[in-house]
Amino acid sequence: MLVLSSPSGAGKTTLSRRLLEGDGAITLSVSATTRAKRPNEVEGRDYYFVTPEKFGDMVKAGDFLEHATVFEHQYGTPKQPVLTALGRGRDVLFDIDWQGTQQLKERAREDLVSVFVLPPTHEELERRLKARAQDSDEVVKKRMAKAASEISHWPEYDYVVVNDDLDRALFKVRAILEAERARRARLVGVSEFVATLVKTRITPS
Amino acid sequence: MLVLSSPSGAGKTTLSRRLLEGDGAITLSVSATTRAKRPNEVEGRDYYFVTPEKFGDMVKAGDFLEHATVFEHQYGTPKQPVLTALGRGRDVLFDIDWQGTQQLKERAREDLVSVFVLPPTHEELERRLKARAQDSDEVVKKRMAKAASEISHWPEYDYVVVNDDLDRALFKVRAILEAERARRARLVGVSEFVATLVKTRITPS
Repeated sequence: MLVLSSPSGAGKTTLSRRLLEGDGAITLSVSATTRAKRPNEVEGRDYYFVTPEKFGDMVKAGDFLEHATVFEHQYGTPKQPVLTALGRGRDVLFDIDWQGTQQLKERAREDLVSVFVLPPTHEELERRLKARAQDSDEVVKKRMAKAASEISHWPEYDYVVVNDDLDRALFKVRAILEAERARRARLVGVSEFVATLVKTRITPS
Repeated sequence: MLVLSSPSGAGKTTLSRRLLEGDGAITLSVSATTRAKRPNEVEGRDYYFVTPEKFGDMVKAGDFLEHATVFEHQYGTPKQPVLTALGRGRDVLFDIDWQGTQQLKERAREDLVSVFVLPPTHEELERRLKARAQDSDEVVKKRMAKAASEISHWPEYDYVVVNDDLDRALFKVRAILEAERARRARLVGVSEFVATLVKTRITPS
């Protein structure tokens, strides 16, 4: 379970997409949300767009691994697709905020790797937040304050990657994923493999 | 500080060399040893070849970060080159066995990353150990038993990499190095960097 978090405007969504394209062993966890769909977004790819009533029902039914409220909208990770993917031995990528990360950590401490993506500069962060034309100035200002607040949570993450260059940042996230796959504690079957290496009877030379 | 350990015959030395060639930010720690130089080895590149008397003097003078006896020969990591490299902000690669790794861990727990390299199969391990023509059958048999003993120490390492294919294994070790460089605890100056991102005064839009 790999979590990517970042303030809005750090380029995390592009990073997630590129990571998924280049790695066949990882599946994206698609969140459910009560916020309105943006023009470029696709139902089931970017989010499952649900009504506040439906979201409330899912919370009550225990359908979420984690859920949180951000900017008066609710976001949640549906449990079943994640369990199915993990059960098939796949890795799962979560594009969630620090609140969701905290909740996931409580449930899956050993099996969770968390990466915080930072924008390269204050100016670039501001530029990217303004670039979303469909948002009002009011929303941009709120986002900037929210970004500062999100960024303050970086020490809660295992890794920090500065997105100064998309290819470099992608390389780093891929390295983190590859390294964690090699981490001893996550290796299933190493003991059995070692037993085949260390046979009691050594063939005489 | 990156430690690569493995039984003899797992291809660790080739892996180390390739890693050093492709990464300008890491320096190899060259060990001192009392064993005889092999024909293909170069003083100061593969080892510092010293007499048992000289080695004993260095131990007494506290010149080693770690030292151990393997096959009646002594091996040790000279302290000064490591401290100099680390002081310059460089990473240091150690090609040492489990005994040396244990000693290094005691001295630098937080700053040490350890990788255990395994051969792909029992047969391949045996083949590689026999391929060293300069060693007698007696030495090969001893090496095979020693390999089994070395391999039993894999659970003491942070990562395990199976060297089934040199390029794949190299890719994994590089990924581990890159990921560990991004690990939060090792990031010097992230707090200062974050302070430049999160300015108190947000420019009005």
